Amino acid sequence: MMDYTLGKGKYENWIVSETKFSPDTLGKCESIMYLGNGYMGLRSATEEPYLKEVRNLFVNGTFNKFGEGEVTELPNLADVTRIDIRIDGERFSLELGKTENYVRQLNLKNAELVRQFDWTSPKGKILRFRFRRFVSLENLHLIGMKMEIESVNKPVSISFDSGIDGRMTNSGSQHFLEGEKRIFDKQFLQLLQHTTESNVDVVINSAHQVTVNGKEIKNQRMHIDRRKIWLTFEAELNPGDKLEMEKITNVYTSIDRPFSEEGISFQQLRDVALQDLRDSLQIGYDGLFKKHVQTWEERVWNHYNLHIQSKDGFDLLSLRFAIYHLTAMAPAHDERMGIGAKALSGEGYKGHSFWDTEIFILPFFTYTNPKVARSLLTYRYLGLEGARKKAKENNYEGAMYPWEAAWPSDGEVTPVWGAVDIVTGKQTKIWSGFIEQHITADIAFAVYQYYQITGDQDFMNRYGYEMIFDTAKFWASRLEWDETHGRYHINDVIGPDEYKEHVNNNAFTNYMAHFNLQLAIKYYEKLQRENQSLLKQLNEKLHLEKAYPLWLERSEKLYLPQPNADLVIPQDDTYLQLKEIDLTKYKQSKKVGTLFLDYNLEQVNQMQVTKQADVLVMFYLLNQVEPFFNEEVKRANFHYYEPRTLHDSSLSLSTHAVLANDIGETELAYSLFRRAAEIDLGPFMHSSDHGIHAASIGGIWQAAVCGFAGLRLTGDQLSFHPRLPDHWEEMEFTIYWRGEPVLIKVTKSSLMIRTHNGKDIPLNVRGENMICHGELEIQL
Amino acid sequence: MMDYTLGKGKYENWIVSETKFSPDTLGKCESIMYLGNGYMGLRSATEEPYLKEVRNLFVNGTFNKFGEGEVTELPNLADVTRIDIRIDGERFSLELGKTENYVRQLNLKNAELVRQFDWTSPKGKILRFRFRRFVSLENLHLIGMKMEIESVNKPVSISFDSGIDGRMTNSGSQHFLEGEKRIFDKQFLQLLQHTTESNVDVVINSAHQVTVNGKEIKNQRMHIDRRKIWLTFEAELNPGDKLEMEKITNVYTSIDRPFSEEGISFQQLRDVALQDLRDSLQIGYDGLFKKHVQTWEERVWNHYNLHIQSKDGFDLLSLRFAIYHLTAMAPAHDERMGIGAKALSGEGYKGHSFWDTEIFILPFFTYTNPKVARSLLTYRYLGLEGARKKAKENNYEGAMYPWEAAWPSDGEVTPVWGAVDIVTGKQTKIWSGFIEQHITADIAFAVYQYYQITGDQDFMNRYGYEMIFDTAKFWASRLEWDETHGRYHINDVIGPDEYKEHVNNNAFTNYMAHFNLQLAIKYYEKLQRENQSLLKQLNEKLHLEKAYPLWLERSEKLYLPQPNADLVIPQDDTYLQLKEIDLTKYKQSKKVGTLFLDYNLEQVNQMQVTKQADVLVMFYLLNQVEPFFNEEVKRANFHYYEPRTLHDSSLSLSTHAVLANDIGETELAYSLFRRAAEIDLGPFMHSSDHGIHAASIGGIWQAAVCGFAGLRLTGDQLSFHPRLPDHWEEMEFTIYWRGEPVLIKVTKSSLMIRTHNGKDIPLNVRGENMICHGELEIQL
Repeated sequence: MMDYTLGKGKYENWIVSETKFSPDTLGKCESIMYLGNGYMGLRSATEEPYLKEVRNLFVNGTFNKFGEGEVTELPNLADVTRIDIRIDGERFSLELGKTENYVRQLNLKNAELVRQFDWTSPKGKILRFRFRRFVSLENLHLIGMKMEIESVNKPVSISFDSGIDGRMTNSGSQHFLEGEKRIFDKQFLQLLQHTTESNVDVVINSAHQVTVNGKEIKNQRMHIDRRKIWLTFEAELNPGDKLEMEKITNVYTSIDRPFSEEGISFQQLRDVALQDLRDSLQIGYDGLFKKHVQTWEERVWNHYNLHIQSKDGFDLLSLRFAIYHLTAMAPAHDERMGIGAKALSGEGYKGHSFWDTEIFILPFFTYTNPKVARSLLTYRYLGLEGARKKAKENNYEGAMYPWEAAWPSDGEVTPVWGAVDIVTGKQTKIWSGFIEQHITADIAFAVYQYYQITGDQDFMNRYGYEMIFDTAKFWASRLEWDETHGRYHINDVIGPDEYKEHVNNNAFTNYMAHFNLQLAIKYYEKLQRENQSLLKQLNEKLHLEKAYPLWLERSEKLYLPQPNADLVIPQDDTYLQLKEIDLTKYKQSKKVGTLFLDYNLEQVNQMQVTKQADVLVMFYLLNQVEPFFNEEVKRANFHYYEPRTLHDSSLSLSTHAVLANDIGETELAYSLFRRAAEIDLGPFMHSSDHGIHAASIGGIWQAAVCGFAGLRLTGDQLSFHPRLPDHWEEMEFTIYWRGEPVLIKVTKSSLMIRTHNGKDIPLNVRGENMICHGELEIQL
Repeated sequence: MMDYTLGKGKYENWIVSETKFSPDTLGKCESIMYLGNGYMGLRSATEEPYLKEVRNLFVNGTFNKFGEGEVTELPNLADVTRIDIRIDGERFSLELGKTENYVRQLNLKNAELVRQFDWTSPKGKILRFRFRRFVSLENLHLIGMKMEIESVNKPVSISFDSGIDGRMTNSGSQHFLEGEKRIFDKQFLQLLQHTTESNVDVVINSAHQVTVNGKEIKNQRMHIDRRKIWLTFEAELNPGDKLEMEKITNVYTSIDRPFSEEGISFQQLRDVALQDLRDSLQIGYDGLFKKHVQTWEERVWNHYNLHIQSKDGFDLLSLRFAIYHLTAMAPAHDERMGIGAKALSGEGYKGHSFWDTEIFILPFFTYTNPKVARSLLTYRYLGLEGARKKAKENNYEGAMYPWEAAWPSDGEVTPVWGAVDIVTGKQTKIWSGFIEQHITADIAFAVYQYYQITGDQDFMNRYGYEMIFDTAKFWASRLEWDETHGRYHINDVIGPDEYKEHVNNNAFTNYMAHFNLQLAIKYYEKLQRENQSLLKQLNEKLHLEKAYPLWLERSEKLYLPQPNADLVIPQDDTYLQLKEIDLTKYKQSKKVGTLFLDYNLEQVNQMQVTKQADVLVMFYLLNQVEPFFNEEVKRANFHYYEPRTLHDSSLSLSTHAVLANDIGETELAYSLFRRAAEIDLGPFMHSSDHGIHAASIGGIWQAAVCGFAGLRLTGDQLSFHPRLPDHWEEMEFTIYWRGEPVLIKVTKSSLMIRTHNGKDIPLNVRGENMICHGELEIQL
């Protein structure tokens, strides 16, 4: 059972709590309380094991493919969190005995996981437990754990096994060859792993410091077994005695920089890792934790400076939750890595990057931490290699980005087979990897947005122009000439609404492709004017002089579906003619995907039912380029499509929240914002089983900042249209415009903007152009 | 908690029972109650899951190597036994609620596993459960399961998930690629697996028949997930209502005969398997079970006809237990397969065959079921390919059998690294695969024994002579000339006592090598006399005319350690000079291997401590060739070595039991027999965690038949020296001598022998030669 109100005093609205333990709902807290630092993610499984646990440790970028019939994925590394505790010789478990005063908390401010409770064993011994854990933001390789057990009423024997367990798999797939296992100085455990196909070496070291009433005790026995290495500790506690265990672990891999680049030998990597662990153990949990907390304070909370006053503290908590996770998931240390759809919190979507990053997550970084945004876009630049491979395989030109991406050079990694088809009894074929093509334009859009907001010309010169030109080349080759209408079509695609496969002229796809082509034209002409030498270089590489006329000709003749008499833009050529069914049952369901208990995908393809925002996302994105769609059109489409949308994708609600705001339905927007936040937070105990919803978490931030504050890029300008919901009194946050911080404060009746060092910036507030001379305050 | 006395009436001394469930001691019954038919072995994990369970399904011969750093092993196939049951929405588990009238039983006669109990849920609902399971001896591919749940006191909701789970691994190593998953007719589940390296295809099909009060209910939902496929069933029961589920499963693989030989396509294999399942489901559990029981009656119990009268029914039970397991483990259907050291009951020793087969298990088959013995020896004949490979790799000639064997052509598959070295913190190196070489002579001995007892000339002509000649060639090349003593030595070996590594002139090894060479000489000369054309063929293949003179010269000059002044034969060149330590602590320990908590192997190498019978096995074996060692020597060595032996190998006790009998210490022999039986049976709840002790189980039979009945091959004769222990009144069994059954009945005062159809056979009873003319009765 979850409680989001337990943070008090300086931790008010900083604490996510579970107040009742249930062995049947472990996935919720494992995911939403996961610990990470962009380098690695540690799912928050409990120390003592339970049947339904999912125990995961992922290191970003270590992708491996198990074998034929599977796709590459982030492998589940050896586990260090499990501790098998015996009390008077019997297994300790919260399923047995009696548990009181139970609470498990993720402290968002400190990025620490704490769990504590009093437990009465089946034999009547009362013990007080406290577990603490963090994944350091200061030393990216470090995991700190602490366990305290106090005997309350009777003498008790405690023993426990703790070590490194390399028997973990990804739902049965083992990505690692057995490596060496070794115990140095009877204390430092080391287990090596080597991925079977991608040849990544992993070093995991763990060491323990165990005391009873402050007096150190040594391990009673060492063990090495298949894929496992561990120690046994034993102690006798009298009432009042306290056992403390600190377990310090570190993880290094051969793809870590600088090791991967400096030709350091594996033995050196092992030595560095072991020495780091020896040093860390000297410092101890408290010292290491202190540095970690300082780092969060400086790099995260002080930096983003986001605050709201709401009648309901949950709103602020959910925004902090978003920033916590956006920090934990982002591989700010290495531009060869992206963000997985479940971040580093679970096996779901295999660590793959989707359009989720560019459309739902990246805006947060683009506006508030451009360095990270640049790293994530550079990942896509490096991904041109895979994108060109995919285009070639499909007989297209240029760069066709994979629907799902792993290591940049991998190309397409979307799995081909999914859940059961209830009609045929076979697995349903997943077509996204073949025909969900809008991702290529989505990435182009993200580059555009990044450039407009940051003005990062260096990025454009090195990476951005090449990405825009090569994606435009793809689209030019992708369009299909329709002789009947004398225009170009894009047939046989999947749009954002994945309940419609093999459709023609998905509006979102066509418009975004058009945008991508237009952007290439614009940048080509800009380089002609401003940077001939760069254009020459790019031309040599990409043959732009042949591409440019095609862009002109084809983008002009590309069919862009227009609003019908009711102002509804047809989602694709057939959607509006499909039969309608009563969706009440599915709309009311607390679980996603329930439609497929009654229909298979082939049948769903024939109904007016939408998985997620499709046309609406297009409004949101393209109005940042030019005011293509007016409020009337937005409103008509919102009211047409929303009732037909099951929000079976976590990407859907936050977009609807922003759009509801755009059409002035602020209270509806607020309720959509809350629903979006409750995908991971909230009372539903199974919604995050496979991992958190990274895009939805990015969407929470956008719903607040781009929704209620109405922050928006419009062409070359920053614009605002604040509309705080009833619950909110005030909202404050910092963004970066063209490299400079801008403080924004919104109340129900005013908008205050302050620039760095009194700089001038042009703005548009509620449709009016103005200049902010250092500071601007407007009554609303 | 185990009880071996619960069989009543016609099941007296047929039932192995567990009467109290403990989630901490699951391994015991999983192993000793495992179900098998030589084709496959199904570890008896409970339907509902527990943390410490080990759920295994092995199909003989499907060896696969996961990757570098590992060795080939029997892979753990997909599981069909787990059923996730929910009672009123909560997980059913015997760790929760209250359990009464619990009993789990293996019925040895029917080869059926039954578990039943009354369970009160935490909410006070009383339910009566009964689970039944068998692995058919009639249709080797078939697994039958049945579950009955009766509501006793209140209305209750029951739901359960059941299907095929391919997420199983061997302690973390995944041997299978994901294959197709499919549900035919919403009822027949099919999961395909394909080994990663050895290219074995596996088809597993399961179907359910579920009824409430006899009325069929359909599954409520179908699922396909990664490596998994399953159905959900739901039912509401009122008091008195009974839910019954039959789950019928079959398993086929591409190495099954005749599929592997007739070029049948994989699709045909799938079709055959699915049709077999459809047919089996029609017959249903009861009909399938009936055929299975008939097969056990005819092929096993009537055939072996073993009976004893003992004051303690456990003795008979343990012999029936031995026959049960010897039947379940033996791949009588396919001579390309051997018997693993843990049979098909666990991951221990990876399904590999050791000398355990030839020395401890094979005599049972050679004496009582020669067809199976021939199949197992043919496995070794096919293994010549691997043995020649190993000899070549080691720069020897002929056939050097691998210490551990898997698929016949694999050669050596012993792993190289073992448990932790408590001094260095590294893994201990396992030297057996390099220098434990007596296996080659042990196999030669088994051929000799088989030929002597069965007179199977066809086997010798096809396989046996070639095996003897090529193993002799190995030994001739292996001997090392010692100039100082003017004799051949065998240096740097491990004998049966694996606590002594890198020793010179291990008595067992030297004597057995000598036997092997002498046997080759004898057979060579026999063929010269009797079968020149065969000799010519073998000569062409093996160059015997060059080998024969070497055998003569070298066997003559091979050093054979002789009894010292105390009649003790030195186990090797240094053993008798090593320091002695007080072994009391380790002798008293109920757990094996405790010595290594105090010493590492290097230290143990320097002490007079023996893992298992070494010199004593030599007496037992070689006196079957010629009366090399008299009772006085046996006695002296027994009394010297036994106190220094920790019996840390399960092979040890049964040999000591036989030898104790040989030296007239029958009551000591009886206690050793009991201790041997209690390695798997008996009260110790962890001794069988990694699997049953196949050699010890063969040893139980030998301790009884070769020990108490004193049955022995001596040269060309069958001999008897019955010495029943106090507890035993009578013993009866059938063996086969030169192809004909011989019934033997022993009492304290008499020996009765009856041959088939009144045939004559020469015998030796207590040292006296005599002829049994059809029937012979001797007062003792």
